[in-house]
Amino acid sequence: MYRTHTCGELRIADVGKEVTLAGWVQAGRDFGGLTFVDVRDRYGITQIVFNMEDNAVLCEQARKLGREFVIQVSGKVRERSAKNPNRATGAIEIEATALHLLNPSKVPPFTIEDDTDGGDDLRMKYRYLDLRRTPVQQNIIFRARMGLETRKYLSDHGFLEIETPFLIKSTPEGARDFVVPSRLNPNQFYALPQSPQTFKQILMVAGFDRYFQIVKCFRDEDLRADRQPEFTQIDCEMAFVTREDILNTFEGLTKHLYREVLGIELDTFPRMSYDDAIAKYGSDKPDTRFGMEFVELNDVAQNQGFPVFDSAELVVGICAPGIADTYSNKDINALTDWVKRPQIGAKGLVYIKYQGDGSIKSSIGKFYTDEQLQAWGERFGARPGDLVLILAGEAEKTRTQLGALRLELGERLGLRDPKKVNPLWVVDFPLLEWDEEAQRFFAMHHPFTSPKKDDIERMQNGDFATMKSLRADAYDLVLNGVEIGGGSIRIHNRNLQSKNFDLLGFTKEEAEAQFGFLLGAFEYGAPPHGGIAFGFDRLCAVMNGQSSIRDFIAFPKNNMGRDMMIEAPSPIDQKQLDELSLRLVK
Amino acid sequence: MYRTHTCGELRIADVGKEVTLAGWVQAGRDFGGLTFVDVRDRYGITQIVFNMEDNAVLCEQARKLGREFVIQVSGKVRERSAKNPNRATGAIEIEATALHLLNPSKVPPFTIEDDTDGGDDLRMKYRYLDLRRTPVQQNIIFRARMGLETRKYLSDHGFLEIETPFLIKSTPEGARDFVVPSRLNPNQFYALPQSPQTFKQILMVAGFDRYFQIVKCFRDEDLRADRQPEFTQIDCEMAFVTREDILNTFEGLTKHLYREVLGIELDTFPRMSYDDAIAKYGSDKPDTRFGMEFVELNDVAQNQGFPVFDSAELVVGICAPGIADTYSNKDINALTDWVKRPQIGAKGLVYIKYQGDGSIKSSIGKFYTDEQLQAWGERFGARPGDLVLILAGEAEKTRTQLGALRLELGERLGLRDPKKVNPLWVVDFPLLEWDEEAQRFFAMHHPFTSPKKDDIERMQNGDFATMKSLRADAYDLVLNGVEIGGGSIRIHNRNLQSKNFDLLGFTKEEAEAQFGFLLGAFEYGAPPHGGIAFGFDRLCAVMNGQSSIRDFIAFPKNNMGRDMMIEAPSPIDQKQLDELSLRLVK
Repeated sequence: MYRTHTCGELRIADVGKEVTLAGWVQAGRDFGGLTFVDVRDRYGITQIVFNMEDNAVLCEQARKLGREFVIQVSGKVRERSAKNPNRATGAIEIEATALHLLNPSKVPPFTIEDDTDGGDDLRMKYRYLDLRRTPVQQNIIFRARMGLETRKYLSDHGFLEIETPFLIKSTPEGARDFVVPSRLNPNQFYALPQSPQTFKQILMVAGFDRYFQIVKCFRDEDLRADRQPEFTQIDCEMAFVTREDILNTFEGLTKHLYREVLGIELDTFPRMSYDDAIAKYGSDKPDTRFGMEFVELNDVAQNQGFPVFDSAELVVGICAPGIADTYSNKDINALTDWVKRPQIGAKGLVYIKYQGDGSIKSSIGKFYTDEQLQAWGERFGARPGDLVLILAGEAEKTRTQLGALRLELGERLGLRDPKKVNPLWVVDFPLLEWDEEAQRFFAMHHPFTSPKKDDIERMQNGDFATMKSLRADAYDLVLNGVEIGGGSIRIHNRNLQSKNFDLLGFTKEEAEAQFGFLLGAFEYGAPPHGGIAFGFDRLCAVMNGQSSIRDFIAFPKNNMGRDMMIEAPSPIDQKQLDELSLRLVK
Repeated sequence: MYRTHTCGELRIADVGKEVTLAGWVQAGRDFGGLTFVDVRDRYGITQIVFNMEDNAVLCEQARKLGREFVIQVSGKVRERSAKNPNRATGAIEIEATALHLLNPSKVPPFTIEDDTDGGDDLRMKYRYLDLRRTPVQQNIIFRARMGLETRKYLSDHGFLEIETPFLIKSTPEGARDFVVPSRLNPNQFYALPQSPQTFKQILMVAGFDRYFQIVKCFRDEDLRADRQPEFTQIDCEMAFVTREDILNTFEGLTKHLYREVLGIELDTFPRMSYDDAIAKYGSDKPDTRFGMEFVELNDVAQNQGFPVFDSAELVVGICAPGIADTYSNKDINALTDWVKRPQIGAKGLVYIKYQGDGSIKSSIGKFYTDEQLQAWGERFGARPGDLVLILAGEAEKTRTQLGALRLELGERLGLRDPKKVNPLWVVDFPLLEWDEEAQRFFAMHHPFTSPKKDDIERMQNGDFATMKSLRADAYDLVLNGVEIGGGSIRIHNRNLQSKNFDLLGFTKEEAEAQFGFLLGAFEYGAPPHGGIAFGFDRLCAVMNGQSSIRDFIAFPKNNMGRDMMIEAPSPIDQKQLDELSLRLVK
C-alpha cells in the first residue's frame, strides 16, 4: 500500500502521527520559505507543508510539482494555525519529510474544479479527467450507493438477483434492436435486450417468485438530448401477487433509497388514475409539486357567441397565481408566441387578468361579461392578482398543450421547487393505443400487460370503441414530473395472451415465431405474476435534482451514440466481416 | 397476495392456524376417503389433505389436479400422524377448506424431480421446467447469494461498483470480439467487451481508487464443452497498491464467500511460483488436493544406455500410491494407450512397480539394475506397493503430458476429494509467450500487465532469451485445480506501455488507434494500480464441487451458441439489414 491514510481522513485527533498519503496535486502555493501543496484523492484534500529551512532539497522538489502530478508524501500531522472550516481535514496539515513523484502529468486541457472551463466535447474526450472533478465523482459514488441500497432492500425482501442473457432474439415489436451477427450460425443474428421482460416472466413460470436485476438494456433509437443507447434498469418481477403488493414493495424501495442515501423521509405516495392525470394536468407524468390544475369551461364558455370556443371540443384553462398585474401585454404576447411554436402547436392563447384592484381585463372581454368571467374565476379559485390562461381545440391535443404551458409557467414562477419530493403513482393506463398512421393498435405498456380483471370479458368481443376504452393493470411511478418507471400485472394465460397478440395485429405465425416459448410456458403452470422496472440512471439524476442523466453514467455516449474517449464505434477488419458472412453497403 | 405463507414455512408451532398457500402440484395420492396433494414452491413442499367425508366436492376437485397445476389452497394447519422427517414441513399438513385452480398444466415433457428423465436438449428447450427442479433452482439461488455476499464484502472494503459500457470498440488483440453494427454511424461497429480491462484502468486514472463490478463479458470463440459466449466476471481494480494488497483483499473475499455461503473456514492460501507449479505439477493450475509431485530423473536416468531417456530433454515421473500389485500388465497397457492418444501425445510410458513383496518389476529392467531403480524409488518416496510412471521427451510437452496423467490417476484413485478445498495463488508468470506459428510474442496475461520491477530494466534492451525470461507481476487464483481468476499489477507509465506494445508487434499507429486513449490517460497523472477478475460462473460451480458451469446460469447457450428455448440467434428482416447498411454473404 502506498499510503497509511486517505486525503480525507486526518483530523485534529491525529496530530503528531507519522503518516503517508498518496494522491493528485490539486494546487501549490509558494510563500518564500514555505511551500503549500494540496493533495487530493476521492476522499478529500489534505494540505502539505514544505519548509525551506528544514529541508531545502525537498522544498525545491515540491515547487516543481504541477497540477495533477501523482505524488506520495510522508510526514507528521500538525495543527494548522489558519484553519479551513470548509474542508473536513481543514484543522490539520502535514509537515513533509519525504516526497516521491509517482507520475507526472501534462497540463490538463481543462481545470479540475467544481466549475470547470472545459466544454462538453473536451470533457467527453478526456473523461478520465472530468471524472476527477468532485461533482461528477460524487454522482458516480452516489450511484454506487444507490445500487448497493437497492440490492440490500430487495434481498431483504426475498428477491433473488438472477442474470438474464444479453445475446437474445430480435423482435420487430417496440423500439429498434441492436443486433449482433453470429459467426457460428451464419446469416443469423442475436439482439441485445431492450429489457429482460420475457425472461423475467419465464423466471416466474420457473418458480423463482421474486426476481430482480440491476441490468443494462439497449435501444437503437435516434438519440434525443437525454437518451443513451445503453441504459440501466432496476428490473423486478413477483409471482402470486396483485397490484397492491407490487406498489407497496416498490414504494418501500423508493422510501428506503431516500432515507438511506439522502436522509429524507417520504410519506405514503398518492395515487392518481391515468384519466385524472390527463384531465387535471394534461400529462401522464404530472409534476405535482405545484397546483395550477386544469379547469374545464365547455359548459360556461360555449354557445355565448365566441366562435373559437364554440367550435372547440374542449375549452380548458389554468390559473397562474399573482402575475396578473406584472405580466404586461408584451409578456402575454410572448407567451402566446411560445404556445404557438410548432413544438407546442396551439392556435392561440386566451387570458383573463383578475387584477389586484378587483377589475378584470381579458382578451375575450367583448364576448363575455365581467360577471361571467368573475364566475369563471371562482371556478379556478382565482384571487385578485391571478392570471387565467385558456386554450381551446381538439381535446387530447389541447390538454397536452396546456400541460406544457403549465410546466413552463411553473418553471418561470419558481414553483418547481428542487427541494420538494413529490412522488405519485399513476394507475389504470389504457391497454391499447390507436396509431392513426399505422392504422393499428399498439400496446401502451407492452404486449404482455394484463387488462384489468373487469375488462377481460369486454376484450373478448369488443368493437373499436370498446378496445379504446380497455384499461390495463399497469402503473407508473412519477417523481417531480419525471417518469421513473412502470410496470403491470402480466397475462399468464395462453389464450388471453394470444387474444392480445391478435388485437395488436400479430398473425398466429408471427406470434408463434417471436414469442412461442412464452406462449408455450403459459401451458405448463404459469403463476399469476407482475412486475416493474425503474430507470436507474434517471432515478439517480432526479434524486439529485438534476435533469441530465449523463453525469450519472461513468462513460456516457454523445448524441450520435459515440464514445468520444475510445472513439467507438469504428471500422472493423475485412477479416472480421468475412468471418461473419457480412458485406458493407457503402 | 395469493398466499399467507410459503410452502416451506409451516411448522408444528403453526398448528391450528388458518393459512393460504399457492404453488405447483408436485404429486397427488388417492386413498379412498382421503386425497393428499403435495404443493411446491421454491421454499419447500407442504402436504394438503382433502377429506371425502368433510367435503366431497372439494375432494373430487383435488383428484383432478395434474402434475404442475398451479393452485391456491386454504385450510387449517394440523399435526401429521405419520411425520416425514426428510421434509422441513414434514410435521404438519393442511386440512383443505378451499381450492382454486390458478392455471392448469399440460403433462411436462420430463419429470420435475431431482433426478429427471429429461435429456439435455429437452431440458434446454423447456428451461422454465428444468429450473423448477430443486438442484437447478438451488444452484441459481446459490449464485444469487454469492453475488450478494461479494457485493457486501467489497463494499465493506471501500470498493465502488461502477458500470462500464457494453458498446465499446473492437480490438484485434486477444480473443474474437462479438461486434454490433451502428446504424447512426454506418459501416462502423461497436464491440461487446471481453472484459472491462481498459475502462477499469481509466477509472483508476480518474481517481476512483477501488472499483468492482459483477459484469457480463463476451467472447466469440469456438465453444468447448464448458465455455459460454457470454459469461460473468467479478471484476476489480485498486490504485496505490502492490501485489500483496490485492492478494490479501481477494483471499479475504474468497474466505468470506466460503464462510458466509458454505460455512467453511479456510486457512491462509499457499503461494507457488509459476515455475514451481510447472516443475512440480506440469500445470499452472495444479490440483493440490493430492501429492504425486513430479520427480526429475535426468541425472540418474541418462547415459546408462537407454536411448529413449538419453535423447530426451527431460525424464520425469510420478509415484501412484498402492497400485503396484493391483495394476496388471493390461491395466498398464491401457494407461500407455491413454497417454499416447493425440489429446495427450506421449510416445510411451515407463513403469516401475515397487511390489508389496519388496521386489521390483519394470519395463526398463534391462537397462537399469534393481539397485538403481531402488535409488530412484527413494527419490519418489515410493513404498512397497507403489507404482512409478515415467515420461520422457521435450521438457515443456513432457511436463504437460505428465500433468494430465497425474490428474487422471488422481481421479481414478479417488484422490481428488470433492470435500477438500485447496486454494492456491500461482504467482510470477512469464510476461511474454512466444508463438511459434505467428512468429511473435503474445502477452501471457494481457498487454497491460507490468513486468516485475526488477525486470523493467532488462526489458528495455533485451535479446530473445531475455524477453522469454521476463517475469510479470501477475497472479492466478486456483481452487482444486481450476483457475478461478487472475490479475496483475498494471503498467501506468506511457513509455513502458509503448515498449510493451512494441514487443507485442504493434506498430506505433496500431497502438495509437486501438489504445491511444489509455496511452493518453497515462500522461495525465496515472496512479500505480492493479487488479484481478474472478470467473463468477466457474467460482459458483467449483464451490459446489461441480465441473459444469451450465447449471449455474439461468439461461445458458448450447455448444453452437444457441439459446434453445427462445431459438436465438435467428434471421432478421431485410429492413433491419438495410438500416444497418449491411448485406448477407450467403
